[in-house]
Amino acid sequence: MALGKVIINDVGPRDGLQSQSKILTPDERIALVTALLQAGVRHIEAGAFVSVKAVPAMAGTPEGLAGLQGSAGSADAVFTVLVPNARGYDLAREAGAKSVCLVLYGSDGMAQANVRMNRQQAESMAAEILQQARTDGVRVTSTIAVAFECPFDGPVEPSMVSELAGRLLELGTDELCIADTIGAANPLQVRFLMSSIAGRYGADRLSCHFHDTRAMGLANVFAALESGVRKFDASIAGMGGCPFAPGASGNVATEDVVMMLEQMGFDTGINLDSLLRAADLAKELTGTAPGGRASAWLRHR
Amino acid sequence: MALGKVIINDVGPRDGLQSQSKILTPDERIALVTALLQAGVRHIEAGAFVSVKAVPAMAGTPEGLAGLQGSAGSADAVFTVLVPNARGYDLAREAGAKSVCLVLYGSDGMAQANVRMNRQQAESMAAEILQQARTDGVRVTSTIAVAFECPFDGPVEPSMVSELAGRLLELGTDELCIADTIGAANPLQVRFLMSSIAGRYGADRLSCHFHDTRAMGLANVFAALESGVRKFDASIAGMGGCPFAPGASGNVATEDVVMMLEQMGFDTGINLDSLLRAADLAKELTGTAPGGRASAWLRHR
Repeated sequence: MALGKVIINDVGPRDGLQSQSKILTPDERIALVTALLQAGVRHIEAGAFVSVKAVPAMAGTPEGLAGLQGSAGSADAVFTVLVPNARGYDLAREAGAKSVCLVLYGSDGMAQANVRMNRQQAESMAAEILQQARTDGVRVTSTIAVAFECPFDGPVEPSMVSELAGRLLELGTDELCIADTIGAANPLQVRFLMSSIAGRYGADRLSCHFHDTRAMGLANVFAALESGVRKFDASIAGMGGCPFAPGASGNVATEDVVMMLEQMGFDTGINLDSLLRAADLAKELTGTAPGGRASAWLRHR
Repeated sequence: MALGKVIINDVGPRDGLQSQSKILTPDERIALVTALLQAGVRHIEAGAFVSVKAVPAMAGTPEGLAGLQGSAGSADAVFTVLVPNARGYDLAREAGAKSVCLVLYGSDGMAQANVRMNRQQAESMAAEILQQARTDGVRVTSTIAVAFECPFDGPVEPSMVSELAGRLLELGTDELCIADTIGAANPLQVRFLMSSIAGRYGADRLSCHFHDTRAMGLANVFAALESGVRKFDASIAGMGGCPFAPGASGNVATEDVVMMLEQMGFDTGINLDSLLRAADLAKELTGTAPGGRASAWLRHR
């Protein structure tokens, strides 16, 4: 049964590693990206153009990106880098980045904690970068963080997220990622919000980002799939977290998401055994990566 | 948002304990049942009328059942006992059982391993007990084990399960439970099978039983909910397994299922904090109960 393709964007090398206590060297980060490429992962969040002083885990992003983009076997890969502001975008463009990720917010509280702006200010900034990126021919993912619930401001109004999504899609974002940054969403909420956005604007450019804090990560992936979403963020070995959300555990593990998708009959283009080797490497390098929830079964099968 | 009631049948005191290495005393088992009752659980698989020599974990079922059925505060509770054959049914009836569970099979391989019959023989036996139970006024749950995949015979044909379900519903079973005994089902399969059965026969008497071996337990609960199912087996602290399915981990944990249902807006009538105390007791008594997958978050919240 072939149900079509689903794209996995592995955010482990950026989102995942940024929340591990041990800081990897740039070379170790490249080794992890390479292991993901070898498993067939073609979309990877590979770094961030942020202050190295504030986020030492992202040191060496410019050089790493240049190396990856020039490497053999990565011609069809999409390496995305996070840019927090216009300065970050300029640095990314100078470093030759072909795909960037901008972050927007479902709440003022999280926008304030992350970038010291309210969410309208964050949106204005993102809109400007997005328009510049279109001129530059740079691919853009616009991520709406805390799209369901914020640790500071509580539940987020779905209609507000849906309208923000609409504005970003109209501005021409190549991808619109709805993120449950703290792992608070339940599958009924996901079904409601994603169906609503897909119904209004189509599902072609949508993606979702889930955490497994409340064990609902895969249920949420399924609910989004049913709503037409065919691209998902996931993090190798379930790395991740959220500095502002106490108790928020890792992103949904890439190996769990790929296992479920492949068993349902979707084509991810990813080899599970090679992916488990990448998960092993993530665990070995960090010492803290939890590993997917289905690891025991996956290794037994 | 009130979406209506969902019934949880906690199978921990039978299905769960039977697969723990430490055998509890009948009094310890009663203590676990009592903790579940105190949390608001009203449907409990409380024992089995099987050979105590073969299954020592179920010793004391007749006395325990009598005590539970006569106890204060359990007037509205449904205590179900497993009966593997006509002899077990007779013993259960003599002990005053008001609700029994019969097991049918999606495969010959599992029927052979469990009761040394093929699945048609198991069905004939169940049909006879079911008719007797109707005469006796005893409530019956008919469970179709390995309804998706069998560890011996591989994938199970959905149409076969759907037809078997139809025959059992026509025979008047009070509940028809579709069981993914080894935790192999994915939510798309669940959606397909449960929608098909619900479409043909209605969802009123349907329930589902999932394991979390591949981390898809909650996704499968959601898929069944979307198909109209409003009753689920779950096991306190995620206890369970399957002796014939290497790598099969526990049943979906009651605390995870209740958390998801309540967060979605369903009414389970269960208090999560009291339920966590029951999970603690299960862990304390057995030493091996894994606990729900969302335990860390549930205890932090």
